Amino acid sequence: MSNIKRNVINSAKSNVVEMAHGNGGRAMAEFIDTLFIAAFNNGQLNQKTDASCFHTQQGRMVMTTDGHVISPLFFPGGNIGSLSIHGTINDIAMMGALPRYISCGFILEESYPLSDLSDIVLAMAKAAKEANVEIITGDTKVVEKGKADGVFITTTGIGELASGINISPQHIHAGDKIIVNGSLGDHGISILAQRNTLGFETSLQSDSASLSDLVQTILASFSTELHCLRDPTRGGLAATLNELAQQSKLGFSLDEDAIPIKDEVDAACELLGLDPLYIANEGKFVAFCSAYAANDILSLIKQHPLGKEAAIIGEVTHDPRYLVELTTPYGGKRIVHWRYDDQLPRIC
Amino acid sequence: MSNIKRNVINSAKSNVVEMAHGNGGRAMAEFIDTLFIAAFNNGQLNQKTDASCFHTQQGRMVMTTDGHVISPLFFPGGNIGSLSIHGTINDIAMMGALPRYISCGFILEESYPLSDLSDIVLAMAKAAKEANVEIITGDTKVVEKGKADGVFITTTGIGELASGINISPQHIHAGDKIIVNGSLGDHGISILAQRNTLGFETSLQSDSASLSDLVQTILASFSTELHCLRDPTRGGLAATLNELAQQSKLGFSLDEDAIPIKDEVDAACELLGLDPLYIANEGKFVAFCSAYAANDILSLIKQHPLGKEAAIIGEVTHDPRYLVELTTPYGGKRIVHWRYDDQLPRIC
Repeated sequence: MSNIKRNVINSAKSNVVEMAHGNGGRAMAEFIDTLFIAAFNNGQLNQKTDASCFHTQQGRMVMTTDGHVISPLFFPGGNIGSLSIHGTINDIAMMGALPRYISCGFILEESYPLSDLSDIVLAMAKAAKEANVEIITGDTKVVEKGKADGVFITTTGIGELASGINISPQHIHAGDKIIVNGSLGDHGISILAQRNTLGFETSLQSDSASLSDLVQTILASFSTELHCLRDPTRGGLAATLNELAQQSKLGFSLDEDAIPIKDEVDAACELLGLDPLYIANEGKFVAFCSAYAANDILSLIKQHPLGKEAAIIGEVTHDPRYLVELTTPYGGKRIVHWRYDDQLPRIC
Repeated sequence: MSNIKRNVINSAKSNVVEMAHGNGGRAMAEFIDTLFIAAFNNGQLNQKTDASCFHTQQGRMVMTTDGHVISPLFFPGGNIGSLSIHGTINDIAMMGALPRYISCGFILEESYPLSDLSDIVLAMAKAAKEANVEIITGDTKVVEKGKADGVFITTTGIGELASGINISPQHIHAGDKIIVNGSLGDHGISILAQRNTLGFETSLQSDSASLSDLVQTILASFSTELHCLRDPTRGGLAATLNELAQQSKLGFSLDEDAIPIKDEVDAACELLGLDPLYIANEGKFVAFCSAYAANDILSLIKQHPLGKEAAIIGEVTHDPRYLVELTTPYGGKRIVHWRYDDQLPRIC
């Protein structure tokens, strides 16, 4: 057991979250010191002000926020803590920006075990450190048992956007190639498998990971050839591509055979009647890039640990209907619809 | 009914929040368009990327975050929406910084009425506009009925800190005067009165308000004489002063008679056995300033609509025990303790 975890448990009256941990008294101050400030250790947090200061250069920054309500809180390949940091880093990376600072707001349910909470917070600290971002400010609230579901975490990130980088749906062009950096659906299916009621087992792990390093690697060589990036989280590749088709006012033509999907994901989807294109990912991007550079960009991605199974999965077309179309292995075509609802609640 | 509210209700299948509003499908995209993008109307949100871009100058910025879990969600003087914006603006203002951008993360309980949600979101938009800040990015999650309590909102703000401004507990000096900008306990008591079970009525309103304009007014004339600012929210003045005493390693001596407290707050505290010094405020600050400038600063504060009842309530002392002491009207002294727990859960 880590020292931090031991201290958190030893300094509390019991081994669970109490209402007092969120009520602004001495218990809250000690709780924040023992857990959050100890885990996220940095000069800003140590000052214990309600806001933290950082230095800027003239230029552009990006800001993003995400609430995390995933159930269950722990899953193969991570927990809500690592997921919250990876998710926020990735939203910044999808703008082509370099993630620098993160804030975290915790909403805790009374009686949640302090031991599990410590594991979540330590996973956040580890994920932030690995991606070279600092958690500089935070907040803790506690609600009565039955008024939340264990732990909700809202993370907000800010990053620096270098001049000359313009990654957006408006920069997608007809003829662009569409690349994904690896297999789809791993996160969603590993969460589903973890939900006890579903009755299937798999060795699959969530793909939850920080994509910032990989994106920076591409930008270093292909900053003008990379036109748009988006992470296909909730709603999967299908929702992401439909949203981008609407925003870019173009169509996307996909080659079903080229889309990397693990056998375990395929098998689970068969069993449960799901379509892997609609399943959430947490360590994947879909990239739109100039056709002439696509093979070089693909080679570069494949050299990165998070891009070994990368593939060109389709291309951008002129289509006044803004549709996402899939060519099946038998040469047929089907439309990948934008569903009203999605199949999996609380996947992130 | 506002157009936005009407559109939100008309475009949904029913008049309540559905799981589909958070699942990454078309329903979610339409919900975000109709409600959040319409209400927070600005160029950044219209781009519908997962992160938003803003421009910076060389210098310092501050970042703050706060989760809001107040119960009930509507109260005299505001609702969770206006509160979340005011709270975040105030945390930035307490650093002496100018609030610029805010992100908001919503965690919604399935079946929450869309009409009430619209009112909350419109109150956020109004509060942001009044304080000249932009809500540039956001996120929406929905959890099953019974897994949250209506609406939780986590807001994160960033602001610009002008050079030469150094407001922090480390700048508090022995001899400094302690000023509050108005009566204490209004927020907490008005929330308590709103909780049906408590059986008392009052005409009191929450003091929820943006303190940014008032702080900027003081800084314009007294940037070096103003040493530290803090908003006494959860835990009230007592918790705030005890925390600052620890951080500054000084003692604070208060004059009980000088502390402005409304008769209605006093009466409610008598009735409920509460101490107003421990009751939350949402539109108040405690300011530490040079003794020689204190009267001039007080006069300036009193000219502002949010400072009419401002008062000098005490001074900073050398005290190796870092205590907060109160001199009663009869000349006696009592210690204002830092309680382990606080009296009121879910007050913000």
